[in-house]
Amino acid sequence: MSNIAVIGLGIMGLPMAVNLVKAGHTVTGYNRSEDKVNKLVAEGGKGASSVADAVKDAEVVITMVPDSPDVESVVSGVADGKDGVFANATKGALWIDASSIRPDVAARLAADAREAGLRPLDAPVSGGEQGAIDAVLSIMVGGEKADFDAALPILRAVGKTIVHVGPSGSGQTVKAANQLIVAVNIQALSEAIVFLEAYGVDTDAALKVLGGGLAGSKVLDQKGQKMLDRNFDPGFRLALHSKDLGIVTSAAREAGVVVPLGAAVAQLVSALVARGDGGLDHSGLFKLTAELSGKE
Amino acid sequence: MSNIAVIGLGIMGLPMAVNLVKAGHTVTGYNRSEDKVNKLVAEGGKGASSVADAVKDAEVVITMVPDSPDVESVVSGVADGKDGVFANATKGALWIDASSIRPDVAARLAADAREAGLRPLDAPVSGGEQGAIDAVLSIMVGGEKADFDAALPILRAVGKTIVHVGPSGSGQTVKAANQLIVAVNIQALSEAIVFLEAYGVDTDAALKVLGGGLAGSKVLDQKGQKMLDRNFDPGFRLALHSKDLGIVTSAAREAGVVVPLGAAVAQLVSALVARGDGGLDHSGLFKLTAELSGKE
Repeated sequence: MSNIAVIGLGIMGLPMAVNLVKAGHTVTGYNRSEDKVNKLVAEGGKGASSVADAVKDAEVVITMVPDSPDVESVVSGVADGKDGVFANATKGALWIDASSIRPDVAARLAADAREAGLRPLDAPVSGGEQGAIDAVLSIMVGGEKADFDAALPILRAVGKTIVHVGPSGSGQTVKAANQLIVAVNIQALSEAIVFLEAYGVDTDAALKVLGGGLAGSKVLDQKGQKMLDRNFDPGFRLALHSKDLGIVTSAAREAGVVVPLGAAVAQLVSALVARGDGGLDHSGLFKLTAELSGKE
Repeated sequence: MSNIAVIGLGIMGLPMAVNLVKAGHTVTGYNRSEDKVNKLVAEGGKGASSVADAVKDAEVVITMVPDSPDVESVVSGVADGKDGVFANATKGALWIDASSIRPDVAARLAADAREAGLRPLDAPVSGGEQGAIDAVLSIMVGGEKADFDAALPILRAVGKTIVHVGPSGSGQTVKAANQLIVAVNIQALSEAIVFLEAYGVDTDAALKVLGGGLAGSKVLDQKGQKMLDRNFDPGFRLALHSKDLGIVTSAAREAGVVVPLGAAVAQLVSALVARGDGGLDHSGLFKLTAELSGKE
């Protein structure tokens, strides 16, 4: 069992930290808003008042924050860097970044982490809040194979499909691809349901038969009913998915590859965020397609 | 057990007819090219030399031909219509059209069939050649509920998920939606894999972890490895998928609904057909995205 620091106790970080506690680890949590820290303490974890405080005795540091700049400030610190993970963690500690950030930033921060004597892994997750609660996340891991092997027993407490996909940054690259597929699959389902409703088809029956054939998907299973019910409570927010589609379209451009449907869906998600729907679940893509079709 | 006529013994029709024979039905097959009829006879079916010959004693007539005009000429006949299904089938027979055609044509032909004393169902299928061979097709059925109930024991010999989705034409509407989802999901996967390869990620590992999360789909399971292997042997041909995307985009336009990704993928499929790749499996969408990205 390990001493684990978890930085960032949001919608994903908190249930992951709680599952690490349940697995028998000593878990110290830090979050900017203190109420989340108290929730972890109520579940058997420890609370820390700063990043430095959280990581000082940790063998494993897990970060789970919203975006690239958030990771950067947590690990590299502000105020001369003295308050960051790199300046305060024990030499040889594993740093597992579970956040979803830019692959190039992940690769750069991994190099900085090695310079600071840490063992970095980028390990973004997929599976959403429910997947985090149920400890069945898919985790795509970039970094050294030996560090991956060392982290595996820890990651098994929060995830189910845990795969080493390449050197540092690769986990984020796979997560970017994941977010492209998910967004496009959600939009495809949205278009199909708007189309079926316009023709007065029995959509409950239709979703059942669509799910049984080559159109079947996790998105259809998990988001189809939400669209029929017009229930777009998050879940995973469009604003965060917009951030991720910015990552994948920009990384695709840097690599010189085209993502025509990825780019198109990024525009639709941007439009939803721009008009104030960024707080909806990403199944809210349905709403825009319905409204563009004169439906509700 | 029933007397069943099967018109159209192609890549889908022949294995469906064979499975009906295996289920104990008396199956009489007709096909324009005779070698397919001989294959059915070798499997225990009977051969017919014309549509009229095939359907004259049938309680159930199944048509499985490529496109709307093909169905129309088979059922309404050419040469004054005297050689078609409607002119030759027994009153009260079930006519099950398993072809994938335009919903409006399906509805119109169903009305004609009722006038001719038949009981029409539009029952397009999903699941591909392997699904037809394994008798696990998804079947989306439009028509009268009583006729659906009468057809169900027959359809169970060829399909697994068999659902009544609404009045005549509805089965085709759901199939159109199915083809939209499948094409868009294939293109999403193509873009993701081109992107991952450009970054040198371990794509075998990546597909495993993507399949475990919200990006998981039947398309990923069945087409991912084909893309990694650059194996685009059909399977379901791009030329046929192009026909189906013409149906869905035109039906969407008639209903006044937008299908932005459906329309975009229809263009990509058209481009592949235009340059001579219509004979490839629809996973061949990968090829265009790779080449547009300067890859192979």
